[in-house]
Amino acid sequence: MLKLHGFAVSNYYNMVKLALLEKGIPFEEVLFFGGQSPEALKVSPRGKVPVLETEHGFLSETNLILEYIEQTQVGKALLPANHFEQFKVRELAKEIELYIELPARACFPEAFFGAKVDPAIKEKAKAELLAGVATLKRNGKFAPYVAGSEMTIADMLFCFSVDLASAVGKDVFDLDLLADFPEAKALLKHFRQNPNVQKIIADKDAQMPAFLEMVRSGKR
Amino acid sequence: MLKLHGFAVSNYYNMVKLALLEKGIPFEEVLFFGGQSPEALKVSPRGKVPVLETEHGFLSETNLILEYIEQTQVGKALLPANHFEQFKVRELAKEIELYIELPARACFPEAFFGAKVDPAIKEKAKAELLAGVATLKRNGKFAPYVAGSEMTIADMLFCFSVDLASAVGKDVFDLDLLADFPEAKALLKHFRQNPNVQKIIADKDAQMPAFLEMVRSGKR
Repeated sequence: MLKLHGFAVSNYYNMVKLALLEKGIPFEEVLFFGGQSPEALKVSPRGKVPVLETEHGFLSETNLILEYIEQTQVGKALLPANHFEQFKVRELAKEIELYIELPARACFPEAFFGAKVDPAIKEKAKAELLAGVATLKRNGKFAPYVAGSEMTIADMLFCFSVDLASAVGKDVFDLDLLADFPEAKALLKHFRQNPNVQKIIADKDAQMPAFLEMVRSGKR
Repeated sequence: MLKLHGFAVSNYYNMVKLALLEKGIPFEEVLFFGGQSPEALKVSPRGKVPVLETEHGFLSETNLILEYIEQTQVGKALLPANHFEQFKVRELAKEIELYIELPARACFPEAFFGAKVDPAIKEKAKAELLAGVATLKRNGKFAPYVAGSEMTIADMLFCFSVDLASAVGKDVFDLDLLADFPEAKALLKHFRQNPNVQKIIADKDAQMPAFLEMVRSGKR
């Protein structure tokens, strides 16, 4: 059985978890916080979460894990049948990761963990975030899903990245990033009604107090 | 015929160009600097270089373009035959992009264009770069290529990313990032003997003066 290493507070972890739940694939969750210990680096070369443990070994990087699952497992397809359209879905997923998730993530310490982020880093992140959201608005279909009428791996990224980026916009920049992007707001709302997303959020909420204590105590 | 949109100074552009030349695929180069004009954004949703123009439309993001070429074109294979090993190559390629290229790129203005980068951004980039190089050392094979005995798409990333990251280390941090990584130094040297790499560098050198003038005049 596939093993998913990671922890319920990690949004990258939850992207993969949603794909597995949507496809109806049995999997085992293995608690793993990553980090730079020799043990962690044997599981993930950069010490990152999530990691998929397969019969052939460990695989890191969320988009690759999503792709691997798509290529090896049965269940609901999260890529379209058309070959070129598959690449356009991957393009959307990567744009969300590079141009929304990464700049938002640079501000997570201030948005979520009571720390301060240097103004120069915030200024760079804000400019990148605005350009990233504009890119998604330009390239996404939102009909109602990111890439069209069917749920795809781009939605896995969207669901657990744009919500946090939106919180960063409000908390750090006093800005509604989705102000003129009602389609994105509607899709976030749609996902909040999804039973698998609700389960993932419940698991996250249950783990949050212990995770915050780890962050506060400097153990992470 | 495939059309590769971009410009010869762009290292991302040159990753794709090397793959096309190594595979022996005919292609047309179309000068494109990206940017945020309406015309550029019709070609690339984030205004980035390179873009591959296919019979089905435009495709952005270097790793996706490399993958698309691999899946649709003949010529030398740049992914191994084994399915799981393909994913381990993609993992290496992504680690180079996220954990070496991106932090190095944050310092390009200071390393290459005579500008100053804020100390907080440099400090963050330096920590990430060191961790990124350690990741590559841990996960790469260098036998002699990044993923083993055969050239793969991970080498396309390596060849045109680690050289610039190494220059950033020297120029911005007075640091030899590859000091205890002789395998990486040897592979960079190996690629400098490659005729396709030599052609790409010659094209880059020829374009550099005009490109620097564009940067200086604020047109880019």
